[in-house]
Amino acid sequence: MHPFDEAIDLCPTAPHAFSGAAHPAYANMVGPFGGTTAAQLLQCAMLHPERLGEPVALTVNFAAPVADGPICFVARPVRTNRSTQHWTIEAHQSQDPSEGAGKGVGSGSVSGVVATATAVFAVRRETWSAVEALMPAHVPTPEALVRMPVKGMPAWPQRYDMRFVEGAFPAAFDEQEQAHSRSTLWVRDEPERAMDFASLAAMSDSFFPRIYIRRRRRALMGTVSLTTYFHADSALLAQVGTRHVLGVAKALNYRHGYFDQTGELWSPEGQLLASTHQLVYFKD
Amino acid sequence: MHPFDEAIDLCPTAPHAFSGAAHPAYANMVGPFGGTTAAQLLQCAMLHPERLGEPVALTVNFAAPVADGPICFVARPVRTNRSTQHWTIEAHQSQDPSEGAGKGVGSGSVSGVVATATAVFAVRRETWSAVEALMPAHVPTPEALVRMPVKGMPAWPQRYDMRFVEGAFPAAFDEQEQAHSRSTLWVRDEPERAMDFASLAAMSDSFFPRIYIRRRRRALMGTVSLTTYFHADSALLAQVGTRHVLGVAKALNYRHGYFDQTGELWSPEGQLLASTHQLVYFKD
Repeated sequence: MHPFDEAIDLCPTAPHAFSGAAHPAYANMVGPFGGTTAAQLLQCAMLHPERLGEPVALTVNFAAPVADGPICFVARPVRTNRSTQHWTIEAHQSQDPSEGAGKGVGSGSVSGVVATATAVFAVRRETWSAVEALMPAHVPTPEALVRMPVKGMPAWPQRYDMRFVEGAFPAAFDEQEQAHSRSTLWVRDEPERAMDFASLAAMSDSFFPRIYIRRRRRALMGTVSLTTYFHADSALLAQVGTRHVLGVAKALNYRHGYFDQTGELWSPEGQLLASTHQLVYFKD
Repeated sequence: MHPFDEAIDLCPTAPHAFSGAAHPAYANMVGPFGGTTAAQLLQCAMLHPERLGEPVALTVNFAAPVADGPICFVARPVRTNRSTQHWTIEAHQSQDPSEGAGKGVGSGSVSGVVATATAVFAVRRETWSAVEALMPAHVPTPEALVRMPVKGMPAWPQRYDMRFVEGAFPAAFDEQEQAHSRSTLWVRDEPERAMDFASLAAMSDSFFPRIYIRRRRRALMGTVSLTTYFHADSALLAQVGTRHVLGVAKALNYRHGYFDQTGELWSPEGQLLASTHQLVYFKD
């Protein structure tokens, strides 16, 4: 079984409820890679018996650090229309006893929520279609590039084969501030795995934080909100298969402790599979 | 009282619950302008006695058409940390009796949800800051441009003073497809109103659907998911005051019934106030 399939392997425990766990193969420096948490949240709706269609939008808010260990999920279709379905999904973990009652958590707070999500699913029809964003041109093939070295990195980047065209993770934190944070890279699961919505959701969070690329210095940071729009349907994902897809990412603005980054994932044939945006907390 | 203040005027009715209504001054062709619905959802958290800090991220999913008339809101802080707070917010309306039970709405569905939202609030600190996105250069001042004519339009565009640099709403649906859908415009509330988070949230949804600009033909459409990142804090919004801000918007991809659009709102001094993204359903 592929480690990603293990990571998103959820067990139904009650109506709307699923259990899963942070997977060591996708560990980050502390807790699991947020991309797998996003994929688990999406997977709850994918596995739900009332699901309609395929995902078109997913927003995940990372409310608290996810700890290694079990995670409980609750996924509810709050509105089902003829061709669209709206979901609210939550991830819970047993509350860390070090977090006391003195933190001002009021009557409206639910203990142990570590992530909330909303998703929109839809039954798609063929329509007039057009790509307006520009896929980077004159990019070398994945075969012409070398894989990013992952030695010494946390587990999760070892689960991706990343081949950078520009804007690689800095080889050293030399504090040489760059003019921009743009990255262009080919990326696929490692080992190879045929792309599906869950892996596309995870890959949308696989861009290294832009502030590392821009400032080349260490910083405390964490994604607080991640939104991905799925332009691909399952037929298009099947065409991509196990091949690399082209990722581009950049930051728009860093201000007073938060920055946003925006990214795109392109099929080798130039179809935009997903556009993805996130807001990231940082401390300098 | 400014019509926007009337539109976001909510009344607390129970713990976490507020009542409001669709305001005729912001009517769209059917139901209210989605921007005011987004502003109402955000305003619930702004008014909530447990609120911490200021908004940094807001996602609104439009689950069903909002009808003219009363709207009930429920806003809960699901996680409050030292400097961040995570919200889930819902808007309900009495269910339209024409929507029958035969639609496959299962046990997990909540009757009458018309919109769901999540928001992240934060207490910000001053940090290293940088704008990486490019504000359009060589743009005429608002005074050098004419206001978009609003005669014959629904009520909501009449509540904005929009002055287009490029990519105006088409004067005629002549079906001349354009190469791109980029718009650049100055925009402010009409009548003038000092900007706050609620109006910034609404303005983030004030870009006309990109498919109108691109295809210059009528289409059925509706935003299904809207995400806004607030880079401005209240001090920066106070500097903007009642002046025009510069909006830019473009589409990334149109495919099989959905397209995404991305936008930015800039202060006259070149500060990025908000970046905003949405996924839109369309039928051609």
